[in-house]
Amino acid sequence: MRILVVHGPNLNLLGQREPGIYGTKTLGEINAQIERRAAELGVTVVAFQSNSEGDIIDFLQAQAPQAEGIVINPGALTHYGLSLRDAIASLAKPTIEVHLSNIYAREDWRRNSVISPVALGQISGLGGRGYIAALEALAALPGKPE
Amino acid sequence: MRILVVHGPNLNLLGQREPGIYGTKTLGEINAQIERRAAELGVTVVAFQSNSEGDIIDFLQAQAPQAEGIVINPGALTHYGLSLRDAIASLAKPTIEVHLSNIYAREDWRRNSVISPVALGQISGLGGRGYIAALEALAALPGKPE
Amino acid sequence: MRILVVHGPNLNLLGQREPGIYGTKTLGEINAQIERRAAELGVTVVAFQSNSEGDIIDFLQAQAPQAEGIVINPGALTHYGLSLRDAIASLAKPTIEVHLSNIYAREDWRRNSVISPVALGQISGLGGRGYIAALEALAALPGKPE
Amino acid sequence: MRILVVHGPNLNLLGQREPGIYGTKTLGEINAQIERRAAELGVTVVAFQSNSEGDIIDFLQAQAPQAEGIVINPGALTHYGLSLRDAIASLAKPTIEVHLSNIYAREDWRRNSVISPVALGQISGLGGRGYIAALEALAALPGKPE
Amino acid sequence: MRILVVHGPNLNLLGQREPGIYGTKTLGEINAQIERRAAELGVTVVAFQSNSEGDIIDFLQAQAPQAEGIVINPGALTHYGLSLRDAIASLAKPTIEVHLSNIYAREDWRRNSVISPVALGQISGLGGRGYIAALEALAALPGKPE
Amino acid sequence: MRILVVHGPNLNLLGQREPGIYGTKTLGEINAQIERRAAELGVTVVAFQSNSEGDIIDFLQAQAPQAEGIVINPGALTHYGLSLRDAIASLAKPTIEVHLSNIYAREDWRRNSVISPVALGQISGLGGRGYIAALEALAALPGKPE
Amino acid sequence: MRILVVHGPNLNLLGQREPGIYGTKTLGEINAQIERRAAELGVTVVAFQSNSEGDIIDFLQAQAPQAEGIVINPGALTHYGLSLRDAIASLAKPTIEVHLSNIYAREDWRRNSVISPVALGQISGLGGRGYIAALEALAALPGKPE
Amino acid sequence: MRILVVHGPNLNLLGQREPGIYGTKTLGEINAQIERRAAELGVTVVAFQSNSEGDIIDFLQAQAPQAEGIVINPGALTHYGLSLRDAIASLAKPTIEVHLSNIYAREDWRRNSVISPVALGQISGLGGRGYIAALEALAALPGKPE
Amino acid sequence: MRILVVHGPNLNLLGQREPGIYGTKTLGEINAQIERRAAELGVTVVAFQSNSEGDIIDFLQAQAPQAEGIVINPGALTHYGLSLRDAIASLAKPTIEVHLSNIYAREDWRRNSVISPVALGQISGLGGRGYIAALEALAALPGKPE
Amino acid sequence: MRILVVHGPNLNLLGQREPGIYGTKTLGEINAQIERRAAELGVTVVAFQSNSEGDIIDFLQAQAPQAEGIVINPGALTHYGLSLRDAIASLAKPTIEVHLSNIYAREDWRRNSVISPVALGQISGLGGRGYIAALEALAALPGKPE
Amino acid sequence: MRILVVHGPNLNLLGQREPGIYGTKTLGEINAQIERRAAELGVTVVAFQSNSEGDIIDFLQAQAPQAEGIVINPGALTHYGLSLRDAIASLAKPTIEVHLSNIYAREDWRRNSVISPVALGQISGLGGRGYIAALEALAALPGKPE
Amino acid sequence: MRILVVHGPNLNLLGQREPGIYGTKTLGEINAQIERRAAELGVTVVAFQSNSEGDIIDFLQAQAPQAEGIVINPGALTHYGLSLRDAIASLAKPTIEVHLSNIYAREDWRRNSVISPVALGQISGLGGRGYIAALEALAALPGKPE
Repeated sequence: MRILVVHGPNLNLLGQREPGIYGTKTLGEINAQIERRAAELGVTVVAFQSNSEGDIIDFLQAQAPQAEGIVINPGALTHYGLSLRDAIASLAKPTIEVHLSNIYAREDWRRNSVISPVALGQISGLGGRGYIAALEALAALPGKPE
Repeated sequence: MRILVVHGPNLNLLGQREPGIYGTKTLGEINAQIERRAAELGVTVVAFQSNSEGDIIDFLQAQAPQAEGIVINPGALTHYGLSLRDAIASLAKPTIEVHLSNIYAREDWRRNSVISPVALGQISGLGGRGYIAALEALAALPGKPE
Repeated sequence: MRILVVHGPNLNLLGQREPGIYGTKTLGEINAQIERRAAELGVTVVAFQSNSEGDIIDFLQAQAPQAEGIVINPGALTHYGLSLRDAIASLAKPTIEVHLSNIYAREDWRRNSVISPVALGQISGLGGRGYIAALEALAALPGKPE
Repeated sequence: MRILVVHGPNLNLLGQREPGIYGTKTLGEINAQIERRAAELGVTVVAFQSNSEGDIIDFLQAQAPQAEGIVINPGALTHYGLSLRDAIASLAKPTIEVHLSNIYAREDWRRNSVISPVALGQISGLGGRGYIAALEALAALPGKPE
Repeated sequence: MRILVVHGPNLNLLGQREPGIYGTKTLGEINAQIERRAAELGVTVVAFQSNSEGDIIDFLQAQAPQAEGIVINPGALTHYGLSLRDAIASLAKPTIEVHLSNIYAREDWRRNSVISPVALGQISGLGGRGYIAALEALAALPGKPE
Repeated sequence: MRILVVHGPNLNLLGQREPGIYGTKTLGEINAQIERRAAELGVTVVAFQSNSEGDIIDFLQAQAPQAEGIVINPGALTHYGLSLRDAIASLAKPTIEVHLSNIYAREDWRRNSVISPVALGQISGLGGRGYIAALEALAALPGKPE
Repeated sequence: MRILVVHGPNLNLLGQREPGIYGTKTLGEINAQIERRAAELGVTVVAFQSNSEGDIIDFLQAQAPQAEGIVINPGALTHYGLSLRDAIASLAKPTIEVHLSNIYAREDWRRNSVISPVALGQISGLGGRGYIAALEALAALPGKPE
Repeated sequence: MRILVVHGPNLNLLGQREPGIYGTKTLGEINAQIERRAAELGVTVVAFQSNSEGDIIDFLQAQAPQAEGIVINPGALTHYGLSLRDAIASLAKPTIEVHLSNIYAREDWRRNSVISPVALGQISGLGGRGYIAALEALAALPGKPE
Repeated sequence: MRILVVHGPNLNLLGQREPGIYGTKTLGEINAQIERRAAELGVTVVAFQSNSEGDIIDFLQAQAPQAEGIVINPGALTHYGLSLRDAIASLAKPTIEVHLSNIYAREDWRRNSVISPVALGQISGLGGRGYIAALEALAALPGKPE
Repeated sequence: MRILVVHGPNLNLLGQREPGIYGTKTLGEINAQIERRAAELGVTVVAFQSNSEGDIIDFLQAQAPQAEGIVINPGALTHYGLSLRDAIASLAKPTIEVHLSNIYAREDWRRNSVISPVALGQISGLGGRGYIAALEALAALPGKPE
Repeated sequence: MRILVVHGPNLNLLGQREPGIYGTKTLGEINAQIERRAAELGVTVVAFQSNSEGDIIDFLQAQAPQAEGIVINPGALTHYGLSLRDAIASLAKPTIEVHLSNIYAREDWRRNSVISPVALGQISGLGGRGYIAALEALAALPGKPE
Repeated sequence: MRILVVHGPNLNLLGQREPGIYGTKTLGEINAQIERRAAELGVTVVAFQSNSEGDIIDFLQAQAPQAEGIVINPGALTHYGLSLRDAIASLAKPTIEVHLSNIYAREDWRRNSVISPVALGQISGLGGRGYIAALEALAALPGKPE
């Protein structure tokens, strides 16, 4: 089984950027945690980060046909990346949207996600643990989440 | 460790009600699953369901002082239960909001939660698995989620 | 055939409360009228009033499985009772919403009903006669209203 | 006693037009049903259909002074026919607005009626039976609907 | 003279709950203060607290006919309790709405009260002193407040 | 102790202007009442009325440094006087906003106050008594209102 | 010089319809007054009334090329008659919109006119005198109004 | 008979300011025209201009008790001068609002007047002639405008 | 094959009306062009213009059953003609909406079409050529547009 | 003559992606059809697809100076690509916006185009034929579309 | 060359008022700095402060005809001073709006300026340096800013 | 000291593109001016332009750690570039936003900036001089702008 893990704009700065909100782990450490759990579950993970919406769509179009699911933290594209949304909708793979912080307890404009209507589900506010929970939920598919 | 698990209005009908959206498991089966996982984690779970906002607040006020966290699926109270919100805010226990279906892929009015601004995080669209992920996240506290 | 007749908050004060708007009949007199017409139609009526949304949902969940239809005047719950709406939607019985006064000729906020999207139909402004017309429409089901 | 029964734009296509929503009865059959019930009640009915708002106003201005009430299904004029609204308000006859389908369970723009604030009441979603209930309510006037 | 003093959801936690906003007095202490001032004014006070909108309406319907006025802190029901509003409007007793904190200096949604249009007046931001001022204003009726 | 009492535009017409809403007392009589109560409390009152926002700001800037609190009825400036708001915010004296009538039971535009977010509290609908209650609350400071 | 005077839907009922708002003069009497003043000014008036937007556009298209100005009371078409608006814009004759009552002191929806952006001016609330003032203003053209 | 004629902010610049919109007449010339027509009608006119809302209210409060009507061009106060509005409402003299240009064919924010709901009528877009028509309408009172 | 070509209000003035926006061709010339292209395609065209929404609906109800498609430029009915919309929806023939000018580069209110949700497609801003392209697209049906 | 044909994000997936909405032709087949028609018209076509807004702007800036027109299907950039809009506006070449499906019969957010105000026209809902009609309209320029 | 420098309501308190936001310089010190830089540039500066919108308009009308430009910090009039806006528009002198703090990083209502649409430009968030930059930009006129 | 100067989409076309709005200077000439002034101030400038949001974020992440400030003209990204906003916020360097034209005197959608809440200040409408003023303000830091 193969799962794509996508990190959107500015997530490469994790650990340096506003640690009060996003924690002190770097993106490398988070990816390492994801891969350890993936190994336990017998899942192959392909991780990717970019600051460009177009590059993320290119990556998804190229990789999704060989994958069974997508875990994505779209960063600020969450709120206006309609092209990314269309890409996810057209690829038709189960997708779980993850946010490190609780986007519902922050500024108003962060409360609206254009991605979530085409996602299977969303996890928000659990820090890096959110990626793990998303991975586990996808790994348990099909047989549907319970 | 003691965790409250609260199910809001109409969730006692789970399994019968619109199974295409909410799945075929009953509330009893979901509670049993939660308790099995809680036992593994060494956590005591107190489960409660009511169709009345006032009764849920009474329950939370009575039980929360002896508990370390709250997992709550507020049902439709998600969208207008401001008294419930105030109760959660004043009890000041880490709270994770759970929705069985992806509320962001349904009617517009289901996209707004008055509860999430006072919650630690939110999990939506993972079915019954969402309760388990919420329980695990609370069990891992403190030491903060990663 | 069995029809539930539900009266929401403050309708127990009927006859005393703002008679210029709601008429001079008491709730007991209205229920008696409904039952006389029900007897003519060979229908059993179960009437219920409560000031609490939770109690109304409890009543509907307990009684609806043995009933063929619901006549409901939700009172002010019409405008914010989303838990009641979910209950009606999940019980999947033909439901007719009744208002004594014409809610469209009053304050703006009384013009929006969260209940009507899940109802079969709505009758507004015909006084107590509205209940009778609703009962007759349900009694003529199936064979569909004409 | 004399009651006007007015059918607005496109209702002459009844029975052919989207029967899943509007039923299979033609306008002729519905008018015949109304007239049978009117005969039982000792009421004279004058029925009229037009696709033009102006023609409907002409009809109402000519006929209403000799009538005791109006039953009207304004079709799509429900949502923008402010001239029709003014006509009804100025003629000052008890008027009941009827819709075959439940306009509150359809598109958003169908939920707002510019007619209902000047009507005595509204019946929505009961099919052709709605006309009969409206007729009965008017026939019971005065002595006010109960 | 008899005045009802009603405290809405979560006010039983007063003194424990966010003391920076609501002060350190318990509800018992506030009720005691009210009663002392009532005694000076020759007024009988009946105090009541509940977390349930329905129970508050039941209380008001049962007690208001023997009372001359109502002092109410509706808690979060202030913002969505339309059934409570209808109850107050129909009971037609002079009612003063009290809030401990200045609701106009807090979140936007706390600025809208569905209760105040049917109240005689509103006092906000004066802490427990607000109840006393409300009591005095009602005691000075009739002869109208100056 | 020194308290400023400010009356905004048109309040000099009190007693003549729409007595059904604002009562029959003149501004002179209201000021006299305030001063009598102030004398009892050992408080010096400086009263001021103007129809011009600029003049009121001039008065407040000149007098507030020697005062301990402000009681203000801003009249219609309540709804658009942002310069007055900034003046009050920058002077940083405890300020209570008073309205003779219940502004929440009148036209919609009267429900929004640009002043209240920078005030300590607000009293509305108690007639001239509102000024007295505001004065008493300020006189009880510090030791904070209870 | 030739001026068109157009009366929209329901204005043929003038004198009978809500005389408290629209006065007791009939449309015939108003037209007679207009013609008397027109004769003094040496102006020919062509008056027209219809309940149908299409008929009014037909009349304007046929008559405007031989006229120097238009006085129009569009009735309720004021608020939604966009076809009438386009007709007036394309005919490019100076047009003055007249309303008998002050439309700004009535319901909210009567405050918006889709006609006024393409008119030379608007007169509202002066009763039948508004038509006379409009006629005089057009008669004084060109040489521009002063 | 005595009529107040009030010109709001910036109208003292008339004739210099954007003549394409406001014409080439100065305020002195317009006042002279008004006075000539007033003399013919046997009316005394008191004209006043100020750039300050407070000064205009002072003038109206001082002069209105001896006058029978008010003609006012509020300039930009039209759109936010709520204190001016309250002054006009409380003085209870028939008031006609005049605008030189058609405010409905300009920027959106110029389309809303806070003054017109308390005025008898409004004239817009007739240039200086609008003042004359307003004067004539007031002079014809009582005996009501026709 | 038979195609209806419908021109809404004011389009009979084409060539005279605002040629800068709508071009210099008359409606007769445009119809002639359409018919020449129709002859090449072996299609019969029935053209119709009216200023009245009701007449256009009458025409469509009478003609559509014998036609295979509709080309319609609804003029200003585009923005409020909900009865026309219902007629097109109920006739269930492939319909293409045409606008001579680019309605998206003009006033805001011209950007919303109530017709397009029930049309197969829309062409805007190509002048008379838009009708030809619409005709060709319908002529290529079925076998679906490519 | 030289025409640029630009396809926005996700259009490279055409034929695979939601064929019920977008048809079964691939982008290669559509480009081939466009080129065949271009050859007949003596037009050179330069086709380009990218998932990145920046790359599309780079392409247009480089190519537009040597071209006479632009046909663009902006994909989801239609709704938020304001940089693309500015690029098209500044290049000042006649541009026709094409959508395969009828964007007005889909989700609300797809109804708004930020591109169309700077385009010459728009074609929506005609499938691949829309590109051909756009090409023909541009090829007929100047001499203006008829 | 002569430049007017205008400071709106409350700016006379500069240095005392919320120094965390507005800095510790007094208005006198800021004016002195402006005058030093003006002397270097060979520019005469006329500075003015008032808490009254009317007084500022009087000043601008009297002084602007002899000046070449205006630097204005309107204080809270920025958000509602439509009379001030009309004055600036009618005087037609190049005007630069200055704000000490970044008004876009504060409360929502501070983000909208009614002045900026009639200004040449705006500088926000640079403290007292903003006045200097505005002065330099005006001094470099004409020959247009580069 | 090192300052980044960033130009967003389409600014490479400066001098060619709509010179009436943006002036006749090319980007090269503007950069040369900035560098001359920077040399005088002893500041090193690193200039960058891209049409792609992702590339600008890459540039800022790579260069900002070695720089003391940022001057940015985000072009149309001003209005929707939330990823750019997050980048600027997380890099935590003093940033001044510059616009050549006065964005508040243009289309409505150009009035909202998603960047300015995270900037130190904003300069709009001063042409190329805006960059110089921004540079000077940053060069004067710290010691805070005056």
